[in-house]
Amino acid sequence: MFFKKKKISLKKLYPKLKFKNNFIVNGIKPLKSAKKNELTFFDSLKYREEAKLTKSQICITTKKLENFLPPKVNKIIVNNVLYELSQIIKKIYINADIDYPDNTLRRPRQNSYKDVKFGNNVLIGTNVKIGKNSFIGSNTIIEHNVKIGINCVVGNNVIIKNSLIGDNVVIQDGNKIGQKGFGFIPLKNKNIKFPHIGKVIISDNVEIASGCTIDRGSVDDTVIGSNTYLDNQVHIAHNVKIGTNCMIAGQVGFAGSSSIGDNVSIGGQAGISGHLKIGNNVKIGGGSGVIKDIEDNQIIMGYPATNLKNFLKKK
Amino acid sequence: MFFKKKKISLKKLYPKLKFKNNFIVNGIKPLKSAKKNELTFFDSLKYREEAKLTKSQICITTKKLENFLPPKVNKIIVNNVLYELSQIIKKIYINADIDYPDNTLRRPRQNSYKDVKFGNNVLIGTNVKIGKNSFIGSNTIIEHNVKIGINCVVGNNVIIKNSLIGDNVVIQDGNKIGQKGFGFIPLKNKNIKFPHIGKVIISDNVEIASGCTIDRGSVDDTVIGSNTYLDNQVHIAHNVKIGTNCMIAGQVGFAGSSSIGDNVSIGGQAGISGHLKIGNNVKIGGGSGVIKDIEDNQIIMGYPATNLKNFLKKK
Amino acid sequence: MFFKKKKISLKKLYPKLKFKNNFIVNGIKPLKSAKKNELTFFDSLKYREEAKLTKSQICITTKKLENFLPPKVNKIIVNNVLYELSQIIKKIYINADIDYPDNTLRRPRQNSYKDVKFGNNVLIGTNVKIGKNSFIGSNTIIEHNVKIGINCVVGNNVIIKNSLIGDNVVIQDGNKIGQKGFGFIPLKNKNIKFPHIGKVIISDNVEIASGCTIDRGSVDDTVIGSNTYLDNQVHIAHNVKIGTNCMIAGQVGFAGSSSIGDNVSIGGQAGISGHLKIGNNVKIGGGSGVIKDIEDNQIIMGYPATNLKNFLKKK
Repeated sequence: MFFKKKKISLKKLYPKLKFKNNFIVNGIKPLKSAKKNELTFFDSLKYREEAKLTKSQICITTKKLENFLPPKVNKIIVNNVLYELSQIIKKIYINADIDYPDNTLRRPRQNSYKDVKFGNNVLIGTNVKIGKNSFIGSNTIIEHNVKIGINCVVGNNVIIKNSLIGDNVVIQDGNKIGQKGFGFIPLKNKNIKFPHIGKVIISDNVEIASGCTIDRGSVDDTVIGSNTYLDNQVHIAHNVKIGTNCMIAGQVGFAGSSSIGDNVSIGGQAGISGHLKIGNNVKIGGGSGVIKDIEDNQIIMGYPATNLKNFLKKK
Repeated sequence: MFFKKKKISLKKLYPKLKFKNNFIVNGIKPLKSAKKNELTFFDSLKYREEAKLTKSQICITTKKLENFLPPKVNKIIVNNVLYELSQIIKKIYINADIDYPDNTLRRPRQNSYKDVKFGNNVLIGTNVKIGKNSFIGSNTIIEHNVKIGINCVVGNNVIIKNSLIGDNVVIQDGNKIGQKGFGFIPLKNKNIKFPHIGKVIISDNVEIASGCTIDRGSVDDTVIGSNTYLDNQVHIAHNVKIGTNCMIAGQVGFAGSSSIGDNVSIGGQAGISGHLKIGNNVKIGGGSGVIKDIEDNQIIMGYPATNLKNFLKKK
Repeated sequence: MFFKKKKISLKKLYPKLKFKNNFIVNGIKPLKSAKKNELTFFDSLKYREEAKLTKSQICITTKKLENFLPPKVNKIIVNNVLYELSQIIKKIYINADIDYPDNTLRRPRQNSYKDVKFGNNVLIGTNVKIGKNSFIGSNTIIEHNVKIGINCVVGNNVIIKNSLIGDNVVIQDGNKIGQKGFGFIPLKNKNIKFPHIGKVIISDNVEIASGCTIDRGSVDDTVIGSNTYLDNQVHIAHNVKIGTNCMIAGQVGFAGSSSIGDNVSIGGQAGISGHLKIGNNVKIGGGSGVIKDIEDNQIIMGYPATNLKNFLKKK
């Protein structure tokens, strides 16, 4: 939807390999959401349950992991799954590894957006949809194919790309949403940029204060649940999932691919490491550094974050 | 001044309550600064001394706290003071709970700002005042009723709203000043946005580096004292008061309503929790997390921050 | 190159002092890089080895330090080296202590930049050079004399000034590069702004994510080595030097004048204090606070950061 896709068959992608069947590779998705003709990848034991249940017919994986996949899956066996994945994404998707400026940006035609109020110097890409009674502030840029719901208020100097935004969402000044995340594969003295074909999904009634950065997903999406509020200068890396009714205070940072439950509150300047699972109703104190999974209903604090009782005992 | 105000009498606001007298509610202010016909609120024992001395004739409070108020004060007794306050603010002030883009923004007419130098694409709201010998950089937005003093230098891509700015102030590129703060009342699965009718006051000779966010006050104001310098990416929440001659290094964050004395220096990435009182001449080490009041002349460090001697002993 | 320089002789700068010889002061540089006719300064024992080897003929220093300098060097003996330096810089360089908006900014003429693709509303200062096959996003400002190499991609709402940028560099949305750093000399109730005459040098193949701030050097330069990648909201203060192939995660902050080796990786929200030397191949955990020099090949974590073994033992 946001990235141009080429139609290439499995055999054309890997002419030297032998497969059980051939088909047009219809996209690239994580194990859990990949459909039959979408390529997937499996690079860590952590995801073996998802591997067993994948519907995909074609998976990049390693010698060590391949037996966790259902027998019907075609396997591409490599040493470095993410490197191989990056190369295949580049073959199928164009320009997803660098955010080239959108050359379809134009001043919005008021008759295409009848019930939308625009500030000055707004730039809108092709095929952008904006719901009625929404406001878009001055100097704001909304790149191609972005969808914004009804009753939204987008402030000044905001940049939105590769994003789907619900209804009644407030996005204050100077936010940057949907840019490529921080993903690359160091290869000797060169970095292979990992293409980002995911998007940002922002649900209804979300409020985002000023100066936040919300990166789009790499293969998966970055998601912010409904009714969640973000304060200023929050940083959300690629593939992060935040639940509903969360309260994220200023300067909090989320590393990539962590998942946060519902009704979670996080104090200012706390940091959440990558690939963690934070439960529902968790309270994380300001300045904490969370480096392991947290179960539901915990109150934690400190660096590394521990439950509140332990934290107070130690101090 | 920044928000449209309706003239409503006390009896009209609360038709079912009985009051000692009736008058037009002339505004909403904290206990300390409220005048006779301005409504105030009292929701914590912490403020009982201010309650005793308030000049306001009308106060939202709780059953438990009402007796601290002078007998002449009309009381509105509720369970949730802040919720009630938010509802009354919404009745008197319009559009203070969402930052709708300013539809009065226009290119500045040079003959209205004779001794001001403007960059390209500057946008200025109605009734903005800018002192002589000031510079406003390109793509900068200054919303309605903002006042900027003489000899100021405002950089590029700056957004200023709901603010009063003194003389000789330098505001570097990409700052966002005066937006709504992070205030809302969680009510089941809905958040009531707390309207922000305060402003930002920046005193003479202040310097603000790049990429900072300074939220306006909710009912009170956010204030930065003269000669105080802020480094890049500093976050100042609503109602924070910073004294004179302070030095705030990069990425420091202040939670709401804290008050910082004069001659305070704060190292990079330190965080100051909400509702604290930091004395004069305090030095706070980089990366510290301050979670309690600090007396004058202390040197503190750590997380939670403690005086320097304790910090070094523990490490 | 970026700042207008006046031609003043040593005798005119200091009419009351006696010197071994007289010459036009050709610039101001650190001890290490100053040439014969460039003025330098020496204010800390830490730099005595560099003092011994300086090629400069004229140095601001203190009574206590003067004997470390070669005998042929003319000395200006003062109590406060940085204050004196700031005054001399102001005499030689104009407008380096405040970032006045660039009044040469104009829409780029496509025939001056034949193989460059510009978004909308781009503003370019006089004498800007941009290499072929580069892209400049919408609302981006590039001030006078900046040089950008070939095959670069600069996003939207970026501001670049006082900078030299190599080839194949990617600079994502909302970055602010080359502004004056956080330098001033507190003098009773007034701050003397320290002029910044350095620049930012960004080497080939660097990638900078969104919302970063990279200050230019004060007397020296701020340098980012080739192939180094920065995540969102990173803050780099004046004079910082980062080596090649480094990986700097989101919200990391560097205080002024620190030097980072090659192949260094730094986790999210870590902070590096000022004037430190971090070796090659160092790994710094997320959230760490580094307050002393780190040798090559160390893995460190914590606040203050210590090697990983110590950190785990203590927790």
